[in-house]
Amino acid sequence: VVPKVGIIGASGYTGAELLRLCASHPDLEVVVATGDSQAGTPVAELYPSLAAAYPGTCFDRWDDGLADGLDVAFLGLPHGASQTVVPGLLDRGVGHVVDLAADFRLKDAALYPQWYGEPHGSPDLLAQAVYGLPELFRSEIGHARLIAAPGCYVTSASLALAPLLREGLIEPTGIVVDAASGASGAGRPPKANTTFCTVDEDFTAYGVLDHRHTPEIEQNLSTVAGSPVQVLFTPHLAPMNRGILATCYARPTSALSTGEARDALHAAYDDEPFVVVRDTPPSTKATLGSNTAHVTAYADARTGWIVCFAALDNLVKGASGQAVQCANLALGLPETTGLPLVGMYP
Amino acid sequence: VVPKVGIIGASGYTGAELLRLCASHPDLEVVVATGDSQAGTPVAELYPSLAAAYPGTCFDRWDDGLADGLDVAFLGLPHGASQTVVPGLLDRGVGHVVDLAADFRLKDAALYPQWYGEPHGSPDLLAQAVYGLPELFRSEIGHARLIAAPGCYVTSASLALAPLLREGLIEPTGIVVDAASGASGAGRPPKANTTFCTVDEDFTAYGVLDHRHTPEIEQNLSTVAGSPVQVLFTPHLAPMNRGILATCYARPTSALSTGEARDALHAAYDDEPFVVVRDTPPSTKATLGSNTAHVTAYADARTGWIVCFAALDNLVKGASGQAVQCANLALGLPETTGLPLVGMYP
Amino acid sequence: VVPKVGIIGASGYTGAELLRLCASHPDLEVVVATGDSQAGTPVAELYPSLAAAYPGTCFDRWDDGLADGLDVAFLGLPHGASQTVVPGLLDRGVGHVVDLAADFRLKDAALYPQWYGEPHGSPDLLAQAVYGLPELFRSEIGHARLIAAPGCYVTSASLALAPLLREGLIEPTGIVVDAASGASGAGRPPKANTTFCTVDEDFTAYGVLDHRHTPEIEQNLSTVAGSPVQVLFTPHLAPMNRGILATCYARPTSALSTGEARDALHAAYDDEPFVVVRDTPPSTKATLGSNTAHVTAYADARTGWIVCFAALDNLVKGASGQAVQCANLALGLPETTGLPLVGMYP
Amino acid sequence: VVPKVGIIGASGYTGAELLRLCASHPDLEVVVATGDSQAGTPVAELYPSLAAAYPGTCFDRWDDGLADGLDVAFLGLPHGASQTVVPGLLDRGVGHVVDLAADFRLKDAALYPQWYGEPHGSPDLLAQAVYGLPELFRSEIGHARLIAAPGCYVTSASLALAPLLREGLIEPTGIVVDAASGASGAGRPPKANTTFCTVDEDFTAYGVLDHRHTPEIEQNLSTVAGSPVQVLFTPHLAPMNRGILATCYARPTSALSTGEARDALHAAYDDEPFVVVRDTPPSTKATLGSNTAHVTAYADARTGWIVCFAALDNLVKGASGQAVQCANLALGLPETTGLPLVGMYP
Repeated sequence: VVPKVGIIGASGYTGAELLRLCASHPDLEVVVATGDSQAGTPVAELYPSLAAAYPGTCFDRWDDGLADGLDVAFLGLPHGASQTVVPGLLDRGVGHVVDLAADFRLKDAALYPQWYGEPHGSPDLLAQAVYGLPELFRSEIGHARLIAAPGCYVTSASLALAPLLREGLIEPTGIVVDAASGASGAGRPPKANTTFCTVDEDFTAYGVLDHRHTPEIEQNLSTVAGSPVQVLFTPHLAPMNRGILATCYARPTSALSTGEARDALHAAYDDEPFVVVRDTPPSTKATLGSNTAHVTAYADARTGWIVCFAALDNLVKGASGQAVQCANLALGLPETTGLPLVGMYP
Repeated sequence: VVPKVGIIGASGYTGAELLRLCASHPDLEVVVATGDSQAGTPVAELYPSLAAAYPGTCFDRWDDGLADGLDVAFLGLPHGASQTVVPGLLDRGVGHVVDLAADFRLKDAALYPQWYGEPHGSPDLLAQAVYGLPELFRSEIGHARLIAAPGCYVTSASLALAPLLREGLIEPTGIVVDAASGASGAGRPPKANTTFCTVDEDFTAYGVLDHRHTPEIEQNLSTVAGSPVQVLFTPHLAPMNRGILATCYARPTSALSTGEARDALHAAYDDEPFVVVRDTPPSTKATLGSNTAHVTAYADARTGWIVCFAALDNLVKGASGQAVQCANLALGLPETTGLPLVGMYP
Repeated sequence: VVPKVGIIGASGYTGAELLRLCASHPDLEVVVATGDSQAGTPVAELYPSLAAAYPGTCFDRWDDGLADGLDVAFLGLPHGASQTVVPGLLDRGVGHVVDLAADFRLKDAALYPQWYGEPHGSPDLLAQAVYGLPELFRSEIGHARLIAAPGCYVTSASLALAPLLREGLIEPTGIVVDAASGASGAGRPPKANTTFCTVDEDFTAYGVLDHRHTPEIEQNLSTVAGSPVQVLFTPHLAPMNRGILATCYARPTSALSTGEARDALHAAYDDEPFVVVRDTPPSTKATLGSNTAHVTAYADARTGWIVCFAALDNLVKGASGQAVQCANLALGLPETTGLPLVGMYP
Repeated sequence: VVPKVGIIGASGYTGAELLRLCASHPDLEVVVATGDSQAGTPVAELYPSLAAAYPGTCFDRWDDGLADGLDVAFLGLPHGASQTVVPGLLDRGVGHVVDLAADFRLKDAALYPQWYGEPHGSPDLLAQAVYGLPELFRSEIGHARLIAAPGCYVTSASLALAPLLREGLIEPTGIVVDAASGASGAGRPPKANTTFCTVDEDFTAYGVLDHRHTPEIEQNLSTVAGSPVQVLFTPHLAPMNRGILATCYARPTSALSTGEARDALHAAYDDEPFVVVRDTPPSTKATLGSNTAHVTAYADARTGWIVCFAALDNLVKGASGQAVQCANLALGLPETTGLPLVGMYP
């Protein structure tokens, strides 16, 4: 029997990407797709791209009863909404809940008021939630009931820096993460700062000093480093649909060559199906549509800086693909089932 | 036993797209990938996007011996080259040859000197070759040994106009096909007219009056109409990677409403897995990465024009996906095996 | 004394473009810039691009008293609003009113309910209004008090087709205008169909059969032809900020060569400062930021079609530059004063 | 008498931009435009954008005699070529030579073999050359005969960091300059890494650790700081035609607030016509086509980093506009003559 999937919040871009990935996943069957603002709208009308696989499906309005019988629920809701929905899903016996929002990602409940402006609504569930970044925390994900899948910036910065911090090769403070993202990270609803004429042919920074995903990067890296890591994170918006590139700067703890830095990446990732270690700067376009991240590192003898890079598709490895990867693990399926290894190029 | 595939001319964009599609095709295994100008280069170096699936593969230099044991050979060569390679492939017993160039598409050998500037090198094979557009000529493709898969402009114009011509609803002459394409149609090698700074933020026509794919459009439409069809074809270059939109203008043979025109499209395509009939103008982006074409039609009572549209991804349904679809048919596999039904959006 | 300019509706894209052009115009001084939805906002905040020339200016809220003492008022308002503002401007003695909306462009008041859905509010002023396309109607513009400056689609289609129709070289019916526009034509306010992720990497048609600018194209061409002209107009949205390309199809009245068609264009435009007749297909990018249109024509002996093209920048020659050109004429200034002749490339 | 201008190397993008700027400059007249690879080609054929202002001009082949009578020579040549041409220009009495290449920018001849791979051909002229960044070194530019105008990366990094270093507010070492550029910075000739399909929808780093403009940034900042400054510079390629954003990271020498950092920028630039100090992150698009740079700064109390930004148009303030600004100063014209203050938006 193919596991039954519900996508709650399916009308946004991460939801549509889950629908795309599930359409070619041999072991997941979408039986529920909700989107309250689009309730009653055919999937094929909002996303003509999905017409050939979902000819008769309409977005449902969310209702607790829709949870019954679900083996997996993916949540593609705006921040804050998952906190109110997840307890009910677990109570109703949904097998595995994979949340794509930040609601269950931070372990320290005190960080929510600091970075998100209000206290957490279900702080008791934070301890239960597993952080869904398989390359760093795979052993906890198998059979987990509540998985908080991380987003694009955090995944890219974490994959680039974690091996070097885990091995004690770079200092845990003074780290800079300078990243650029495509516009799909801002979601589907029209806003003044995401119109075509605003974004096209422009490059600009935003969220300077206080972007919400900062504490999550620090949490992951502190966990692998075993000591507090501090990061300044500067996101930029690039004129493209998809893709994240994180360019990270850190100081070595002692003399470190480019070769040694890359060795640490190879040791961490050579057995990973979804991470490629490169000898050249990774390009976001090489990851388009795939669940694969590309990473590399350089050491500058002249200035003493270590520079490491990670590129990925923000809607796949940085969102919906990662969620499916976690679901595969939770369900006991082969981790790569139904997930694209290769990017679409050009 | 999984059928063995050779991709001859794998280093261009259609070749890379064949590698991408084959990577997730359960019943095709790439055993040979040649690219003379890139011989010895790792696939993952020229196309980092393919690194995770082809970690150790290098492009080979073509040699006749590579044909031995191939069940399918796909040819992604520049125009003219297939004529010299195909006879040898057939002689060496390759099961099915699917050519992505125009070398075996025209039935009338006299059209080659007229539109391509030189006579055909293997005119005797033209009669043997099957035209690989399944939605129009499926019955001929099953078990065919030599299949000439059509390209993007011809596929889009043919799919948009064929049902109306077959039913005698529009006049066979005076037809205009006004189309726009993304830049990947021009191929990988750098040229003055395909640099980023030339194409970005530009829209322009090219090949005005004499584009080489004109006679192929006319051949297909004449076949389905049962009488000579004449088309003026004007291609444009749009600032995007992929996608073709054909906007076609024709005169009705007698009074024809929008509903009647769309009925003809529904009758032709409702059972087709890879064609969606829309009630709104199709968008190229809805087809991105998929093997699906979107079509629709309008009738203008005021001016008497019939306008019909088709959108598709020029590298998938307009090239490599179509080739795989033909190979599936030739091999007796389910036609949709391994082919993406849905587009990547956004 | 430098003429005083008011820009009413200055916060949209055509308003911002008027502010840009006036900043380097030696004989126009902006003394009023209104934008009701942005009243009180510094110009430099909404448009940082204008900061260096308008460091202290804020958008005003419109008030009749602001009209006093204006030599020129430009109106960049949404359709329908100009009808209510213009009578007051004329009464208050504004020297010249140049409206960028369609409110005073159609001569036949009956066309407003048909194409715009409601009757005209000041039909008596329609006779007084002069159509602001200098290359076709220059003599009427000098000293005119009310000028209706045409938009991008109409200007491009009119410039491409008018010389051929005026000379009786093409048939007045059966004409197709197939055009593509950048996204700035849709204006500044965010909408679902103009977000970056909707437009980027997409090409699609809209307004099929019933776009509002159709009757204006027909009006202009009928005037120059001396008999009723009928046009089917199909606009498309291309993924770029600016630029319009009109590709026009018509039947010759008798045998016509490419050379003869271009001769008609040269005869019409060789003395025009803002029209360039090309021997190759014009490119929108060549017109970027300039007030110049590029045109050409082809005759296809094979199918009998005449194809003519015009490219221009929709916000300059297709809107604000044209308005300044008209104001120059109305004020008795040299027509090219302050207007960019050359495009920004790349 | 209007000063006579020669543009040597006019067929590249900086040359074309000089032609654009000179077309609307009231006090410069282009009498010579050379481009050896395009000798004999009409300017309007290679750059249709320039057709309306240069209808009959063809690119010349360079010849020493063309220097006679020039008041200003702009050099838009590839690196290395200016070294061989400039001595002759000065000998022939050209009034002012403004070189857009790096040939005369570095004061220490020993840096050329280190960063450019070969020794300088006219090292004696290095002392005579004036560095053409008016906002930092204006007093040296007036009446200078040989001016080395800096490029886009160096101008943006220098403008962002110079005020803070001059005031001793940030440490001179450990500085990171992370920048993104549009593709026009790579020039006109087609290359594998600048085709549309390579650049579009991609974001990637290049020149990691060893980009040639690093020593120039260090030279400028060391000069204003009065002590050696060391910078790690990481350029990225963004999918856009024009624009540079430099995001710079430095450590404060003592406690420094965002307000204090911006005060230093205001003190440096409030009287500068071509620098705008912003309170929000600058956007490259706001500078499009203008000679204006936008800068700002932030201080992060949490991590201790100072982040400062500068955005500009790489072909105007980062190349040809800066060269004209320098020529204005050298000729004794008002510095802003003929230069666009405002950007084209959108």
